[in-house]
Formats: sequence, C-alpha cells, structure tokens
Amino acid sequence: MQTQADQLKDFLPFWEKLTAKQKEELSSAVHKRHFEKGEILHRGGDDCIGLLLVLSGQLRAYTVSEEGKELTLYRLLERDMCLFSASCILNSIQFDVMVTAEQDTDVLHIPSDVYKRLMEESLSVANYTNELMATHFSDVMWLMDQTLNKKLDSRLAALLLEEQAFSGSDVLTLTHEQLGNHLGSVREVVTRMLKYFQSEGLVRLGRGSVRLLDQERLHQLAGDSLR
Amino acid sequence: MQTQADQLKDFLPFWEKLTAKQKEELSSAVHKRHFEKGEILHRGGDDCIGLLLVLSGQLRAYTVSEEGKELTLYRLLERDMCLFSASCILNSIQFDVMVTAEQDTDVLHIPSDVYKRLMEESLSVANYTNELMATHFSDVMWLMDQTLNKKLDSRLAALLLEEQAFSGSDVLTLTHEQLGNHLGSVREVVTRMLKYFQSEGLVRLGRGSVRLLDQERLHQLAGDSLR
Repeated sequence: MQTQADQLKDFLPFWEKLTAKQKEELSSAVHKRHFEKGEILHRGGDDCIGLLLVLSGQLRAYTVSEEGKELTLYRLLERDMCLFSASCILNSIQFDVMVTAEQDTDVLHIPSDVYKRLMEESLSVANYTNELMATHFSDVMWLMDQTLNKKLDSRLAALLLEEQAFSGSDVLTLTHEQLGNHLGSVREVVTRMLKYFQSEGLVRLGRGSVRLLDQERLHQLAGDSLR
Repeated sequence: MQTQADQLKDFLPFWEKLTAKQKEELSSAVHKRHFEKGEILHRGGDDCIGLLLVLSGQLRAYTVSEEGKELTLYRLLERDMCLFSASCILNSIQFDVMVTAEQDTDVLHIPSDVYKRLMEESLSVANYTNELMATHFSDVMWLMDQTLNKKLDSRLAALLLEEQAFSGSDVLTLTHEQLGNHLGSVREVVTRMLKYFQSEGLVRLGRGSVRLLDQERLHQLAGDSLR
C-alpha cells in the first residue's frame, strides 16, 4: 500500500525537482477525495477546485453548448491529471470545461492556489503544466478533426464488422497496421482511433487483436460506410 | 524607428526577467524576416522554424484534414506571437498546424532551439508559454463550439442585415450589448463573434458602430436565419 507521499513521488514527474519546503507544502495541501459515479466535479469557469490526479476510476471532461449539447473532450484514467478543473490558474483560459465521474473515482486533489504558487516558483512545475496543456490540446485537435471530417471512425467501425462477419469471431487477429492498410490510413491514426473506441467501450484491445464489445453501436457508427 | 532590442523589450513580456546573458543570446539569435502574401511559413509537425512575432501584416494558422479540407484556427495580427510554428519545443503537441501569410508580413523570428533553452531556464518564459498556449487553446475551443453549433454566427449575420435594411445605412449604430439582447446572448459572446467577422473582412468595428463590408457573404452566412 502506497502512502500519499509515495503516490506524489510516483505520479508527479516534477516531484524530485521541488525544494524540501515545496514538497512539505504540497504534501500537506493534497488530499485524497472520492467521487461517486455520475457526480459532477467541476462546472466550468467559476468553479476552480484544483488539479485532480486520478488514482482509480474514470473522469470525463466535456463542454456544453448554449443549446445544451454535450461534447466529450477526453477521458482521464488512472495516473492522468486533470488541469481544467483548475482553469483559474491560467488567465488566458477563456472556455468552460465540465468534469464528471464516469465510475466511482478516487483522486488526489491539489488545490488551485497551492499549484499556482508552485507554478510561479518552480520551472519544473511550469514546464510540466505546458506539457499537460499540450496533451489536452492535442486531444481536442484530434477530436475536432474527427468531428468535422467524420469518416475514419465510421470506416473503421464498418471494417471491424466486416472482418467479424468474415472470420465468424468477435476477436479479430489483425494488427493496427493491417487495419490501416485496409483504410488507406497509417498505423498511428488507426491506433489512436482504436483507443478512442476502447475508451467508448466499443472494443477491447489486446496484443495483435481487437475484441468487439458493442456491435450495435459499431453498426450505428458504421452507418453508410457499411457495404 | 525602434531598434530590434527595443522591439524585443516592447513585445516580449518576459524580457525584463531575463538575465543579461539570456538577453544577449536572444538578441543575437532573433532576426527580422519578411514573408510575401500567400507564402506558407510552416507546414506542420516536421517543420519547426521557431516562434514568430508579427510586426506588421497578418498570418493565418489552420489545419488540413485528410481529405484536404482547411479549417482556420486563428489569425495573428500585429504584436501576436505564433507558438505552433515551433511545435517541436513541446513533446506533447501531437497535431499539425499550417501557417500562411495572408498579407505581406514582417516578423521577428525566434529559432526553436534558442526559445526551448530559454523555456527550460527561465520561469517567466515557461509561464509566458503557458499563457500563450492557453490563448490559442481558447481560440480553438471557441471555434469548435461555433462550428459544431452553427447558430449564433448565422443569427448575428441575419440581424446585421435586418438592421441595415431597417436603417437604410451600412453603418449600424448599435452597441454589442444591444445586439446581444436581440440575440438572447451576452455582450462578450457577441463581441467575440463581431471580432471574428472583422477578421474575416465582413464588417469593420468602430466605437459603438458596425460597418457592413461584405453583404454578399453576410447573406450566405445568414442563410436560413434570415427572416
């Protein structure tokens, strides 16, 4: 069983770069918190509870349009850090992200004021924040591309269903590269889409295999792409 | 006439926080560059020319889908800094942004390796990068919301054309708050959209006034929203 200090050391890549005083401040400010499945942790800009490091469970970050339509931006699994529940630490963040627990979830909670002070004092924390934001930014750019050019997800879903019909099994023994070749796409793009499918509960990925979990939704997604 | 050192001091908010040695290194690495209208400055991830500070002119940052469809992410005007032409300075940036000159443009060019070193040495530069990325991120989040929920732009275009028909003038003397009230939206949202319209050459904003510049495109945008 890890102590909280062990967890901080293990999960925070900047930990060893902090001074003894900073470690002490951070340790005493961080608390473990539990959220029930369905609970909303963060409701946009006016909330600013702090950074959330996922110990177990699953969080979902999403936006809500003026018309009330939700759009999932990304999911946070074990060891992932949620920055946008602390959006007030950066002046230039001018958008609202909601965060909800998709499963019963345990997190380490770092209060915004404590993190902000660390970011202003520690080069390692500032550059960690840069990388964290770039990661979230990459997720959103990928999603935007998918949403505006809804083709590959649909074509991949159709391909998986075709391969299943062909092999007669829910477990497809195909590499991501092979799937990419079928789709005229590169391995990296297919891997990313398969991981997205997995996070949506459509498939489970193994070594050199893809297990289909939710054929109904795969059929919906395939839509016109199914020959 | 500003010297280059004056320009750096004036445009870079972290300048005064640099050491004498860092100022010296940056000054000697920075060069003024000119790009012709239509020239492509940056072609995605493999390019990594460096940060570009716009002295005059206009740059456009955009993505290109697999199918070749362009999407403008944001525009960079005088005093704006382009971070994504130096995307290699952050490992976690996993997307490609193109940058092109929309007008003849003069920039100060900061090479990627010089900036990266500064970011690793200087807390002020690291946190400036954070704010810069958050600004670009906010632009993209706004755009995504607009693109997925294409309503307000269309409704605002329709409103401007109606007001023009009503007043018989291309110059509307209406505040952003008044326009917001018409649309059931808040002033901030309308202001942002009007600025976007302006950057697209549809309108020119004055103090308490909006001049319609391109009625044909406003009509196209209004589409079904025109009563």
